[in-house]
Amino acid sequence: MRRGMQKAKGISLIPVPLKDEILPGDNLAEKLAGGLHHQKAELISSDVVVVKHKIVSKAEGQLVQLDAVKPSARARAWARQAGVDARVVQLVLDESRSVLRKKVVAGRGVLITETHHGFICANSGVDVSNVDGGVKAVLLPEDPDRSAARLRAALQKKFGVSVAVIISDSSGRPWREGLTDVAIGVAGMKPLIDYRGKRDPHGYELHATAAATADEVACAAGLVCGKLERTPFCIVRGVSYQAGKGSARELVRKSENDLFR
Amino acid sequence: MRRGMQKAKGISLIPVPLKDEILPGDNLAEKLAGGLHHQKAELISSDVVVVKHKIVSKAEGQLVQLDAVKPSARARAWARQAGVDARVVQLVLDESRSVLRKKVVAGRGVLITETHHGFICANSGVDVSNVDGGVKAVLLPEDPDRSAARLRAALQKKFGVSVAVIISDSSGRPWREGLTDVAIGVAGMKPLIDYRGKRDPHGYELHATAAATADEVACAAGLVCGKLERTPFCIVRGVSYQAGKGSARELVRKSENDLFR
Repeated sequence: MRRGMQKAKGISLIPVPLKDEILPGDNLAEKLAGGLHHQKAELISSDVVVVKHKIVSKAEGQLVQLDAVKPSARARAWARQAGVDARVVQLVLDESRSVLRKKVVAGRGVLITETHHGFICANSGVDVSNVDGGVKAVLLPEDPDRSAARLRAALQKKFGVSVAVIISDSSGRPWREGLTDVAIGVAGMKPLIDYRGKRDPHGYELHATAAATADEVACAAGLVCGKLERTPFCIVRGVSYQAGKGSARELVRKSENDLFR
Repeated sequence: MRRGMQKAKGISLIPVPLKDEILPGDNLAEKLAGGLHHQKAELISSDVVVVKHKIVSKAEGQLVQLDAVKPSARARAWARQAGVDARVVQLVLDESRSVLRKKVVAGRGVLITETHHGFICANSGVDVSNVDGGVKAVLLPEDPDRSAARLRAALQKKFGVSVAVIISDSSGRPWREGLTDVAIGVAGMKPLIDYRGKRDPHGYELHATAAATADEVACAAGLVCGKLERTPFCIVRGVSYQAGKGSARELVRKSENDLFR
C-alpha cells in the first residue's frame, strides 16, 4: 500500500484561553496548566506549545513605564513627523541595532528595525498595552530562545512530557497586507526542515529550499491565539517536526544573502 | 460566564492525499471527492479547502514544454550568470510585469518579480516539474481567484455545502529563511479580517492592522500539504473567517504603501 493511501495524519490546533491577566513574576507553566484544566485538555509528548510573546514579556517584567522615558531629539523629531509618542519611538530606537526603513505610510509612521536579537520587524516589536490597569510599553523578551527553553523545561517537570515550545509574534510583511505570526523563540525543535536533495513521488529532485516549520506552526496558531479573546496559548498536535536543539535565529536570513536589506 | 472560559473552539487540519497524478483536463472537485472517500472524511459547510496551486495549474494545462521556448539574449545573459536554464528564465520574464531584484545568492540565481496578477514572488512562480513522464514548466494559474471560485462552485454542486477555497503557493520571504505558504487565489471568504477599532479584554483599543486570515490558513495547510507525499489538498475546519466575496489581490500591498519596492 502506498503511503499516500493510508489514512493521513491530521493536525489539531487546541486554543488555551486564560482567565487572568499575566503579571510580572507569573509562572507560565502553571498558568498553562490551569488553562488546560479548564479546557479538559492535556499535554502529550511531541505537542508543540505556541505562546504569544506578549505574555512571556509580561511574566518576565519586560515592561517600561512610559513616563520614565526621556526621548532624545532624534526620537522627538521622528515622533513629530510620524504623529506618534516620542517616548515609544525612543524605546524602539533603544531596542534596535539599526533602522532599515522609516516612512509615513497612510498617515502612520513606521520604523522597520533590526532588533538586538537580529530580527527584522516593525518598531523593534515594541507594543503599548494596558498592563495591570496602567498603560505600559511591552518589549520583546530579552532572549526568546531562552524563555522558550525555560517554559519547555518547566512543562517537562510538571507534566512529564517532552514538547516543543514556540514563542510567536505578529508581524507585518513586505508586499502583502495583514499580519501573520512568526516564531521568535524556539525550544525542542529544529525550526527549519530541509527537503533539498529529497525526491518527489516521480523521483524528481525537490529543489525548493527548506520549509520554515516553526513559522508555519506559529502562523497556524495565530488563527486561534491573540485575537480578541484572551488566548495566549495554543497546543499544536500532530506536526511532523525534527526534535532537537533549535534556535529561532536560524530563521533569520544572513544579511549577505538577503535581497531586501 | 466569560467567553474565554467556555470550551474554546479548536481547528482541525485534515490532509487529503491523492492516488493519481493530476493531468490537464482533470476535474479537481472529483479528485477531491475521491481523496475524501479514501480518507473516510467529508466536507462540511464553512470548511476551508486549501489546494496547492501546482495541481490547479496542471489541471488547467498551464504547462510549457521547455523545448518550445526560445530564450532571448536577455534571458540567456542572466541564465549564464545565474547558472540556470535560459528557457526557464525566458518564461519567468514572460510571466512578469517587472523585475524587483536580480541576484546570485549562495551560488543560485534568483529573480524576484511582480507577476501579471500583481504578486511579488521568486521567478514569477514558474516551477519545473515532472509531468506525465516529461519535464515541463508549470506556470501559476491564469486567474487564481477564478480557479478558486470554479472549484468552490463545483464543490457546492457536488456536496451541497458552502465552503471557502484557497489556492496556495510556497513562497520565500525577505529577512527570513525557509518557505511558507501564502494564498494566491481565494473564493467564498474575505482574506483579511480587520481588528482595527475593536477592543481587547481591558477595553484598550487594538491598534494592530488586519490579520491576513487567508495567508494564515494557507500557511497552516502547508504543514500537511505539498511536501514529499502527494497531498495537494487540506481541509481546514473550525476557522473563524468572514464569508463573502473576496480576492487574493486584497492581500497584495499597494506599491505606494510598500516600504520594500
